[in-house]
Amino acid sequence: MADLEFIRKLVIPAESKIVFLVMDGVGGLPMEQGGLTELEAAHTPNLDALAANSICGFTIPITPGITPGSGPGHLGMFGYDPCRYIIGRGVLEALGIDFDLEPQDVAARGNFCSVDEAGRVTDRRAGRIPTEKCVELTALLREKTKLPGVKLFIEPVKEHRFVLVLRGDGLAGDLTESDPQRLGVPPVPIRPLENASDLAASQKTADLANHLVAQAKEALKGQRPANMILLRGLDKRPAIPSMREVFGLRAAAIAVYPMYRGLAKLVGMTALPSGTTLADEFDALEKSWPDYDFFYLHFKYTDSRGEDGDFAAKVAVIEEFDSYVPRAMALKPDVVVVTGDHSTPSLLRAHSWHPVPTMLYSRYCRCDEAREYSERACARGALGNLHAVDLMPLALANALRLTKFGA
Amino acid sequence: MADLEFIRKLVIPAESKIVFLVMDGVGGLPMEQGGLTELEAAHTPNLDALAANSICGFTIPITPGITPGSGPGHLGMFGYDPCRYIIGRGVLEALGIDFDLEPQDVAARGNFCSVDEAGRVTDRRAGRIPTEKCVELTALLREKTKLPGVKLFIEPVKEHRFVLVLRGDGLAGDLTESDPQRLGVPPVPIRPLENASDLAASQKTADLANHLVAQAKEALKGQRPANMILLRGLDKRPAIPSMREVFGLRAAAIAVYPMYRGLAKLVGMTALPSGTTLADEFDALEKSWPDYDFFYLHFKYTDSRGEDGDFAAKVAVIEEFDSYVPRAMALKPDVVVVTGDHSTPSLLRAHSWHPVPTMLYSRYCRCDEAREYSERACARGALGNLHAVDLMPLALANALRLTKFGA
Repeated sequence: MADLEFIRKLVIPAESKIVFLVMDGVGGLPMEQGGLTELEAAHTPNLDALAANSICGFTIPITPGITPGSGPGHLGMFGYDPCRYIIGRGVLEALGIDFDLEPQDVAARGNFCSVDEAGRVTDRRAGRIPTEKCVELTALLREKTKLPGVKLFIEPVKEHRFVLVLRGDGLAGDLTESDPQRLGVPPVPIRPLENASDLAASQKTADLANHLVAQAKEALKGQRPANMILLRGLDKRPAIPSMREVFGLRAAAIAVYPMYRGLAKLVGMTALPSGTTLADEFDALEKSWPDYDFFYLHFKYTDSRGEDGDFAAKVAVIEEFDSYVPRAMALKPDVVVVTGDHSTPSLLRAHSWHPVPTMLYSRYCRCDEAREYSERACARGALGNLHAVDLMPLALANALRLTKFGA
Repeated sequence: MADLEFIRKLVIPAESKIVFLVMDGVGGLPMEQGGLTELEAAHTPNLDALAANSICGFTIPITPGITPGSGPGHLGMFGYDPCRYIIGRGVLEALGIDFDLEPQDVAARGNFCSVDEAGRVTDRRAGRIPTEKCVELTALLREKTKLPGVKLFIEPVKEHRFVLVLRGDGLAGDLTESDPQRLGVPPVPIRPLENASDLAASQKTADLANHLVAQAKEALKGQRPANMILLRGLDKRPAIPSMREVFGLRAAAIAVYPMYRGLAKLVGMTALPSGTTLADEFDALEKSWPDYDFFYLHFKYTDSRGEDGDFAAKVAVIEEFDSYVPRAMALKPDVVVVTGDHSTPSLLRAHSWHPVPTMLYSRYCRCDEAREYSERACARGALGNLHAVDLMPLALANALRLTKFGA
């Protein structure tokens, strides 16, 4: 893996365009030994035609055996070392509701919970209250809480989950959480982590957060079952150099779900307006084609159907995606990458560590003998097992956007 | 990648002999989608026979997507991390004219340029003056310049290019260049880089270089069009431990072009005398066979024809090289590596990032199913995508020159 500063020095201007077609969780497994994976079972004439003119293989999202969450999975795919740039749970939750986090903001994931009269946690999720109740309670908290010198945002997410954002000067992350992670004990006071990079600022932020928790307890007294809050993953968004700065790319994101737009915005992409269907996403691609050098188009449902454990449904959405590929190719992109941020085998009903089937098409890709986009074909491809973080430099090279290293 | 100190501790003595047959820029691309690469098109019965008894695959010169210059390309192939040992432009230029750089020397690449009456650069290459003029002007500079406590070497290269070497105590590199890289502005004073490792020595060297530039300006006054100089890439040669020290190898280089002999000398190889043809190079190999453990034999023209964009000519020189392979095999080397320092596809007319087809022959190589030396066959080889810097330890292992790590 080359570091970003190394790459940045080699970037040269070009007119070329790069498209990343990302099927979330695309990699799979056979349901029975010797069977086909979802991709192998799917009828994908367009992806297969592209494979014949591509270099194919696998990308390893993190390192072998490591299953990534969506945050690290995407950062690696975008060329950023996911073990260096850490996205806290609070930040991810804020991105997921399209909250525009500013660099100095500290975000937390909040849970409404239940406590007994002695203040001991009896249900960490308050019986998963309905989302409408969550909306009502967050409104109550907004009214009844206040911190000196800090602007507070308390936004509902879903069921018992909400987002808390502290905006003010001199705040810092690197904090423990108040969730005791077990029942029968009270919430834990928030403290700076031992290795906090700015201990004074973290202490100040911890004090503010604890003050807020006390106010929330008071405000929620008498509510049932949600009469207390737990805060997790309090942190700032990581300071990530933008794709413009390091790769010289005007980059745009097309994604239906806010979290993926948010991840893209973290690396400086512009989130394009788009509707909710694949047709809408490809419309957005076509419409914005002249204005950007790099497009990340995200398709969620391969992951969703994998998490459902619904093999046939995952096959169906892969086939649906396949039918849109010609619309991307008609734009005559210089480089097309088809990949996922991780695998989500229906068999496992979850993200997995499996390398992701990946192909890179360009005039200069040196295509191999893989003739379809599938796990079996990718295993014969010339990309081998590429670290996901190396995919972006390879795409830049194929777009003739990197100059020679050394004389 | 194992570091050199790690390898050094494992080296054990042996009588075995290793030969690196290096076709510069050997990797290629098809000219048309679906076509053959230069190597695939070439008729190479000897290399193919060797492939059948070799382990085949690709080497990645730096990291995926990165195109190496000749310096980093060779260092990696020789087992030295090319991102750690940086070869400045001045050093490379000095190597290219067979100048014997001493460790304390600071070398610069010089350009004769044109300036107007106000001293502003009007042509950074002085209209590419003929080489004879360069010879004449460097002689003039040698006569008219002088620095206290420093021995100066000013040697012509070609057209507007020359080499400047400052030899003296207490000099350092880590300097900016005087070339403003654009027209209409005067040359820039040379300064230490911000991260210079010995700031005082770099400042002293910068002062001397600026003093020399002032003398050169005076000496060239009245010349047309070359009435000024620009200095670039002022640096010492990197301090690289020799192949004898780290790999326990008495290493010899056979190369027609001075720059490649120079790169080999940087890592402590002995540059063998040789004529200018492949027959001469293989004569040199045979003649010195008893005296060394490691031979690097460099063939330039695969790169040259690639840079010309002449596919057929590159095919022809590959076939020429192939016809000499039996002469190397007749010496019964224990390990033979066939590789390049990078790819130079005729299609791109330049060095490229593409992994380099590489094969390693030995009694113990565990040969794979690749039956020819080509991109397509190497994609099926068991070497996979190997970092070039790992090739040397692998060659040492196959030569039974490395002992076990750990008990």
